[in-house]
Amino acid sequence: MSVEDWDRDNCNVGRAIEFIGDKHTMLILREAFLRERRFDRIQRNTGIARNILSDRLGKLVSAGILTRRPYQERPRRYEYRLTEKGIDLWPLLVSLMEWGRRYGGGAEAILLHHKGCGAVITPCLACPECGEQIGARDVEALAGPQAVLRQSA
Amino acid sequence: MSVEDWDRDNCNVGRAIEFIGDKHTMLILREAFLRERRFDRIQRNTGIARNILSDRLGKLVSAGILTRRPYQERPRRYEYRLTEKGIDLWPLLVSLMEWGRRYGGGAEAILLHHKGCGAVITPCLACPECGEQIGARDVEALAGPQAVLRQSA
Repeated sequence: MSVEDWDRDNCNVGRAIEFIGDKHTMLILREAFLRERRFDRIQRNTGIARNILSDRLGKLVSAGILTRRPYQERPRRYEYRLTEKGIDLWPLLVSLMEWGRRYGGGAEAILLHHKGCGAVITPCLACPECGEQIGARDVEALAGPQAVLRQSA
Repeated sequence: MSVEDWDRDNCNVGRAIEFIGDKHTMLILREAFLRERRFDRIQRNTGIARNILSDRLGKLVSAGILTRRPYQERPRRYEYRLTEKGIDLWPLLVSLMEWGRRYGGGAEAILLHHKGCGAVITPCLACPECGEQIGARDVEALAGPQAVLRQSA
């Protein structure tokens, strides 16, 4: 079975996009990775309208990507933090940032410092088996065990 | 200057999101990486309404992420291929796929085969300087030379 014939209902990319395939949501995630946790700060930094921000934060909490907990009682206010599931979106944010840097004007507004070796880096994709850096042309997509053949051509 | 005070107008993540921060666009990119190049095939595989698909393809061509060229004359039909700028979005797609696999039910609908070493792999992020695998906690964000201090607190 070739990948072309595979039914996309089973697609992990599609499932991820269901959660985060929205520009407001991605901006909120950026703020979360920059440790902005409070509604007003996130609103200020993203410029997202308050009703939309409230909706997207609620969806991210429902999806288990952010947790919400009170930091003030009167009036009650909440802060939002990434869960492990949320932190696992880090490669997505890094990918957006690097592509944006390369093609969006090249501003070095933010630098990533690898605490382990001390270098300022552009993270790259690598093969966990052999350690080589990899790009799109180094990898081929194969239909996996749960690939489902499309019913209608 | 701490990252919190940095003006987001200068943000590369934001710039990338302007181009691809739309679920339809991301599904089209998935198809492009699976070498689906024709409107009808992309439409079938994504289920995107034809008018929206036409709009998003046009935007991707305008952004230089896809190129369009005729493959048939009467009636004239076009196919869409990734440019180098588009191929450079591959880490984004890999990130979506891996996160979707981990949190979207775990279906192994597609496998990535590293042609270099022969292994079926889950690409990881690595430090290009020292070669270590890295995650969110191994890296810190620093304000870079083009970071702009926010005017109003």
